[in-house]
Amino acid sequence: MGSFKGHALPGSFFLVAGIWWTGKYSLWHATRRNKSIGSTRLAGRSLQRRLEVIESCVVLFFSLVGMLAEQFLADGPKLQLYNFAEKHWEDLMNWQHATMYLFFGLAATVSLVLHTTEAAPLALDRLMLAVAFFNEGFLFLYHLHGRSMLDVHVHQLLLYAVFGQAIVAFLEVFHRGNIILELLRCTLTILQGSWFWEIGFVLYPPSGAEWDLKDHSNMMFVTMCYSWHLAFAMLVVSVLYCTVSCVVRSRLKRTPPMEMGLLKSRERDAESEDDVL
Amino acid sequence: MGSFKGHALPGSFFLVAGIWWTGKYSLWHATRRNKSIGSTRLAGRSLQRRLEVIESCVVLFFSLVGMLAEQFLADGPKLQLYNFAEKHWEDLMNWQHATMYLFFGLAATVSLVLHTTEAAPLALDRLMLAVAFFNEGFLFLYHLHGRSMLDVHVHQLLLYAVFGQAIVAFLEVFHRGNIILELLRCTLTILQGSWFWEIGFVLYPPSGAEWDLKDHSNMMFVTMCYSWHLAFAMLVVSVLYCTVSCVVRSRLKRTPPMEMGLLKSRERDAESEDDVL
Amino acid sequence: MGSFKGHALPGSFFLVAGIWWTGKYSLWHATRRNKSIGSTRLAGRSLQRRLEVIESCVVLFFSLVGMLAEQFLADGPKLQLYNFAEKHWEDLMNWQHATMYLFFGLAATVSLVLHTTEAAPLALDRLMLAVAFFNEGFLFLYHLHGRSMLDVHVHQLLLYAVFGQAIVAFLEVFHRGNIILELLRCTLTILQGSWFWEIGFVLYPPSGAEWDLKDHSNMMFVTMCYSWHLAFAMLVVSVLYCTVSCVVRSRLKRTPPMEMGLLKSRERDAESEDDVL
Amino acid sequence: MGSFKGHALPGSFFLVAGIWWTGKYSLWHATRRNKSIGSTRLAGRSLQRRLEVIESCVVLFFSLVGMLAEQFLADGPKLQLYNFAEKHWEDLMNWQHATMYLFFGLAATVSLVLHTTEAAPLALDRLMLAVAFFNEGFLFLYHLHGRSMLDVHVHQLLLYAVFGQAIVAFLEVFHRGNIILELLRCTLTILQGSWFWEIGFVLYPPSGAEWDLKDHSNMMFVTMCYSWHLAFAMLVVSVLYCTVSCVVRSRLKRTPPMEMGLLKSRERDAESEDDVL
Repeated sequence: MGSFKGHALPGSFFLVAGIWWTGKYSLWHATRRNKSIGSTRLAGRSLQRRLEVIESCVVLFFSLVGMLAEQFLADGPKLQLYNFAEKHWEDLMNWQHATMYLFFGLAATVSLVLHTTEAAPLALDRLMLAVAFFNEGFLFLYHLHGRSMLDVHVHQLLLYAVFGQAIVAFLEVFHRGNIILELLRCTLTILQGSWFWEIGFVLYPPSGAEWDLKDHSNMMFVTMCYSWHLAFAMLVVSVLYCTVSCVVRSRLKRTPPMEMGLLKSRERDAESEDDVL
Repeated sequence: MGSFKGHALPGSFFLVAGIWWTGKYSLWHATRRNKSIGSTRLAGRSLQRRLEVIESCVVLFFSLVGMLAEQFLADGPKLQLYNFAEKHWEDLMNWQHATMYLFFGLAATVSLVLHTTEAAPLALDRLMLAVAFFNEGFLFLYHLHGRSMLDVHVHQLLLYAVFGQAIVAFLEVFHRGNIILELLRCTLTILQGSWFWEIGFVLYPPSGAEWDLKDHSNMMFVTMCYSWHLAFAMLVVSVLYCTVSCVVRSRLKRTPPMEMGLLKSRERDAESEDDVL
Repeated sequence: MGSFKGHALPGSFFLVAGIWWTGKYSLWHATRRNKSIGSTRLAGRSLQRRLEVIESCVVLFFSLVGMLAEQFLADGPKLQLYNFAEKHWEDLMNWQHATMYLFFGLAATVSLVLHTTEAAPLALDRLMLAVAFFNEGFLFLYHLHGRSMLDVHVHQLLLYAVFGQAIVAFLEVFHRGNIILELLRCTLTILQGSWFWEIGFVLYPPSGAEWDLKDHSNMMFVTMCYSWHLAFAMLVVSVLYCTVSCVVRSRLKRTPPMEMGLLKSRERDAESEDDVL
Repeated sequence: MGSFKGHALPGSFFLVAGIWWTGKYSLWHATRRNKSIGSTRLAGRSLQRRLEVIESCVVLFFSLVGMLAEQFLADGPKLQLYNFAEKHWEDLMNWQHATMYLFFGLAATVSLVLHTTEAAPLALDRLMLAVAFFNEGFLFLYHLHGRSMLDVHVHQLLLYAVFGQAIVAFLEVFHRGNIILELLRCTLTILQGSWFWEIGFVLYPPSGAEWDLKDHSNMMFVTMCYSWHLAFAMLVVSVLYCTVSCVVRSRLKRTPPMEMGLLKSRERDAESEDDVL
């Protein structure tokens, strides 16, 4: 996966995930705040649950695709782990990436089960997410042996975002629904996504002009660049959050909260109210 | 204890402990959730307490056996700490292992006292467990001087599980009865157990084919293997949890909650209700 | 910025900020404690909000000035990041300092928005402050490559205060209004301010007598000196806190709590009571 | 202070402090648990407060004595910090020890003020204790440059206890009166005290038989020895706790809770009830 595309692809996934989560949590939060003026019409509990189920399915699908792609594309190990003929491990990098996808797949499966049945406390989905991020960081941590200085540095910076996400997701086990933690996790997800792109640009520049991987001033620039990515991620999250808040509020103002003509939809809401999310 | 058996034995103990705890906590949790339909018949408080006492006794017994075995078996120091004749310490490894058992024995003793008398707050048993795990990790941490790279690495990976257990047990002091923390601790216990087996297979392969302890790709494989053990442990815990939940629910459905014929057992329950667990 | 003035300037800002915050939080705390005897006259909620807005504006203003100064003063990069002619980065130090100011500016902007509109939960301002301090510490951490021992050491000591502030501000997200955490953060801010001055005196002594940057006893003295700065900061905070408490209590004693002649101001208070701070 | 006595002295202080705290917290806890049967006669709030004041005074006194002893005894610097004639720092070790005492003195002063006036929230005394322990650990951390391996190791082990105390004291800011945290802190205090004695015995053996400071097996023994000290400290704390609990309960059984003849003492209790501890 040592290529520009190999970094841009997961980067795009995390960017999309971060933006999607920001929208979702902003919507839930706006809904909860404006409950008194009937916002549950916009996002009732059955809708919330359906969204969670769809999200889990999508994540599960892409995890499976990712695992299969790592195994069977061009230079994959094709499920062979050890080459007994030549006595060496087969494509450990691909196996490691597949393992990372495996844990995100597990997290999605657990989330799917939690939101369709009521087998276990909901907070378990955050714990599984924390474990998936922790596992990703753990594998990256022992991934960097023998690389050049700047290569190690850009991957270490990535670990701040990854372990940050793991910690925030773990805190959410105890503070579920805290909008501040949720937005912080979204920010770190977007940061991780955009930093994957940055890694691609630094290590495999599409323009062709190679970076000097041993120059200390390059390292200082990259460090600062990480701060800028963080600022950019915060900007994206706050713009999205404000947009969603405004849209929810303006739509609620246009439609009076107690319309009798909407009885049918209200009935649906009433029954969804019984669901425990 | 530098042998295959020396790693398989504690590994088996931790595996059994992890599976036992998973069953126990799943049962308590299912009981609490289904209280309204009379599940206390299945697991009343006096039963819970009796189980805790039995568990503590078993742990205490094996700790004592472990300590005696380390001291008096074949190459043990037989309680001699310093060899004044030859001016060196006697079998420090055995002493260190005996010290680890000592702390688990202390934890079991405290738990036994807490559940028979009511001398101190119950949360103390989790603190003692945290101290026992912390002490195990602490001794392993300074255990690794001068070994080969892979040997150090597999033991360091073990520390993630050990210190993880210590932290989760410490969190349980404040969040007692949180099923998510309990299952997380069970997962880490099973992980520790299965990883002890893995260490045995890597360092003292029963097949005879030695691993190259200085090869970096071996190290990368072992790291990934740790993730797989974690996934396996999560699988075991979730299967057990679901089984116990289903069994409890199905048994409750078969037997109606308010049978008058069971008055005697209900009376026993009523009195057990007074116990403070 | 490698000069005495370059360290004295931010030092003075942090000193002023620390003293200002100490006064503010002491006043709020004294107000809350003496609510029953009418202290809201001294510091009603609308006053609190107005102060927060002014504070945010001032911080925002100085952040902007700082960023512009770093860019356009004497040896600044004048917004040029990369010198394509000579193939090197332009004044990375100045860019890094500007980035630090940027994050404090962002924190101030968010605080301003939070206290004028009610777009998001108030706790967000503490999170932004935590991020700003974390970013400062993060950039300093990778700032120290290749400097002499004492230079590295004095900057590392600074990190204790900076990361300490980040952690305390993050804790305040969950324990908002906890006077102990607030005073701890004030103490660390003053510590950071006075330590910036100390760094100036050690690395660029105005008296001209250079320090031996490789002498270990100098390092030990500097470490101890840090403790003294901490003690000094605690002294300043406690003196300020006691003064404010006494002044509030004595003023409340002089003016009886239920004066009918002050109806107008009481009306203003009543309406400010509706504000949600 | 590099002598046997120099380590035995602080060790004794911490031992006494740990035992005293264990007794105090056990008594408070037993009192609170048995409130219903009139235990407030044994330890009313005014008594609690008086004990706290006395404790603070004693700590303050010994801190002052310690500071003066470090400065003016035999080889002290006599308040001279820098020797301008020979251009070197005067007895930095003594200054560092005096600084440690200073912080414990500050903590005692704050505790004294808190328990005599009601100037600030009580939790502040735990924060000051946390700062004092943190400062002690901080100074020890940069204390060890250029010493031999075993010397560094025994001091590093000490840091576990010191930073552990700091963390537990900080947690007590939020969980005040949690008997488990209090007993944990007592255990760590006794551990620190007994370990100071151990350091004295290892580095300056009174028997004269020097230890080999570079032998790795000595280091392994010392590590295990630390675990034994911890077990010993836990034993001391639990024996003390049980003794106090039993004594309180047996005394309460002997004297019936509602004796009318003790009206005077009950009146005193009633007024002490008004105190806010």
